[in-house]
Amino acid sequence: MTLRYTPVVTGLPATVPFVGPEAQERLRGRLFRARIGANESVFGPSPRAIAAMAEAAQDCWMYGDPDNYDLKAALAKHHSVKPENIAVGEGIDSLFGYTVRMFVQPGGADTVVTSAGAYPTFNFHVAGFGGRLVTVPYVNDQEDPQSLLDAAREVRPKLIYFANPDNPMGSWWSADALQWLIKGVPSETLLVLDEAYSEFAPKGSVPPLDVSNAQVLRYRTFSKAYGMAGARVAYVIGEAGVIRNFDKIRNHFSVSRIAQAGALAALADQTYLADVVDRVATARERIGAIGRANGLTPLPSATNFVTLDCGRDGDYAKRVLDGLIVRDVFVRMPGVAPLNRCIRVSAGRDIDLALFADALPLALSAAALTT
Amino acid sequence: MTLRYTPVVTGLPATVPFVGPEAQERLRGRLFRARIGANESVFGPSPRAIAAMAEAAQDCWMYGDPDNYDLKAALAKHHSVKPENIAVGEGIDSLFGYTVRMFVQPGGADTVVTSAGAYPTFNFHVAGFGGRLVTVPYVNDQEDPQSLLDAAREVRPKLIYFANPDNPMGSWWSADALQWLIKGVPSETLLVLDEAYSEFAPKGSVPPLDVSNAQVLRYRTFSKAYGMAGARVAYVIGEAGVIRNFDKIRNHFSVSRIAQAGALAALADQTYLADVVDRVATARERIGAIGRANGLTPLPSATNFVTLDCGRDGDYAKRVLDGLIVRDVFVRMPGVAPLNRCIRVSAGRDIDLALFADALPLALSAAALTT
Repeated sequence: MTLRYTPVVTGLPATVPFVGPEAQERLRGRLFRARIGANESVFGPSPRAIAAMAEAAQDCWMYGDPDNYDLKAALAKHHSVKPENIAVGEGIDSLFGYTVRMFVQPGGADTVVTSAGAYPTFNFHVAGFGGRLVTVPYVNDQEDPQSLLDAAREVRPKLIYFANPDNPMGSWWSADALQWLIKGVPSETLLVLDEAYSEFAPKGSVPPLDVSNAQVLRYRTFSKAYGMAGARVAYVIGEAGVIRNFDKIRNHFSVSRIAQAGALAALADQTYLADVVDRVATARERIGAIGRANGLTPLPSATNFVTLDCGRDGDYAKRVLDGLIVRDVFVRMPGVAPLNRCIRVSAGRDIDLALFADALPLALSAAALTT
Repeated sequence: MTLRYTPVVTGLPATVPFVGPEAQERLRGRLFRARIGANESVFGPSPRAIAAMAEAAQDCWMYGDPDNYDLKAALAKHHSVKPENIAVGEGIDSLFGYTVRMFVQPGGADTVVTSAGAYPTFNFHVAGFGGRLVTVPYVNDQEDPQSLLDAAREVRPKLIYFANPDNPMGSWWSADALQWLIKGVPSETLLVLDEAYSEFAPKGSVPPLDVSNAQVLRYRTFSKAYGMAGARVAYVIGEAGVIRNFDKIRNHFSVSRIAQAGALAALADQTYLADVVDRVATARERIGAIGRANGLTPLPSATNFVTLDCGRDGDYAKRVLDGLIVRDVFVRMPGVAPLNRCIRVSAGRDIDLALFADALPLALSAAALTT
């Protein structure tokens, strides 16, 4: 008996780098006391969204509307585009997967350019569909438009990935820099512009939407500022002809009816969103202050997390991270050097950050001892 | 500017055959009064599942556990298998998509065998990943094991699709017939055994699970008997080595935290499930009686719907269907001749079936007039 998997699937690693905090809790035999590692919004969704989801739970014997009609209409209005410029998906990861699948097939000819250390799930999909990944380094802890365009001119990729603001570094570019990047994209290449953190970004750093440009797709999510990571709903904005391709391959019924209701209510509550953005800004200040008080350097952040430079190598930062984990504080760190000299701390409530403030000096002492 | 889509995606149709009832309501400008067309469970999920989902809505700022650990543990116990024999997905459609992707890549060499008129979403994925679909006819309104195995011996497919009980006809086979099919599957072929309706099936029609056999995957869902179609959670049971491949390609965070909580609670309430199965049996009797009273022939059903033979061709059945739709009764029909001489009516509450009983004679009169 030999089942005939595709060569791509046969070649994929059996393990993937997505360890959830629950898995760590099971390993530790103990719950985390502060969950500030996955850039989730501990401030939660709008109470109106919670109420809408609780209400929708009763109706979940019905499939959600496969057209996501009401949500697309509301998003179109919110962004001053048309519903045909929007595709809704079961989380931003699935939208990345669909995008890669549109352009990448096995054989080695389909190339994708990204930055070494940028969002790994995007790379997971490139590998998963048999694409060839070309990476350029971060420059000054930022994804670098010039480097990406240089690589693109060389390898003529089908896709370029760029996040603004960036995860895991928290860095961002001005709208002008983004426009320069967009203009420089080779004519047969699509720019995958990940804007998962855009609601936190300073004014002037997110370029205006231009749905006449078929070379850019803009990805947004309800998982971060809207606080609905566990509901699974995100969307992508772009030129109608490009967007139409999602309908060719997406799982049409995959957005839950509960998530649709929650997203509609969350979108309608922009007051709550603004409040979250304020609270996140306060939390960023606090994380930076805690870091500085312990000799770490907070990097500027336009997101709901702060990346703290531990000032040494990846091994040291990993020891600091482990020292926080063992003290019940869930945080994460970048996976690639030199970014991995840092740890990454998500915005938390006062109680979460107090736990972090208590644990950090102990973690640093322990990390220094084991050198 | 020419974006370079893959040849497969370029060749896919821009329209897909998944019109939701909401789209029909928007076209009609009027809501349906009875929603008995998509084999949803109008009886709803267990009240305990609703409560668990409402509760989880508050926690949905957290991603769901990407390992689906608790749910897999509960399912493993329920089915007397191990957690490593189970993969959980965001609906059965996504699990079919992942399965097809494991085995099918473009080039024309990767063949899949199914029955003409069987579940179209499975075929959507085969086309979507560039596979070649070979179909055999239904025999006596049943998917036919002999025909499928004959075709399989000829084309050596990577996958065979089989549903037991069957949608859209409601028919089923004995466990012995299934065992015969399983034994006959060519040694390099995987049997995709869709058991979405298995909770409704008569005793002795679902073969025992055998997770030592790597040639069969068994697909189950919370969308039908458990009444959670809009929550998006399903699972597949099989040999651990085969199951492991889902981890290579699935969207690890795609099952919502709300769905995880709901599924756990629903699974724990087998008393409610048994009650639903009873109510569905009663509804099937009633649908059959309404059909017979109007000169239609109900086909035997092991599912939560009854397929009614309208006794003429597909055009006629379509007119009957349209007559029901226009009278605010949402029903569907098989898409392929000769199955499309029938309409398909999902189990409903008394009120739903009373609306159907009122509308059917009018729909039949109108269909006869427009001959």
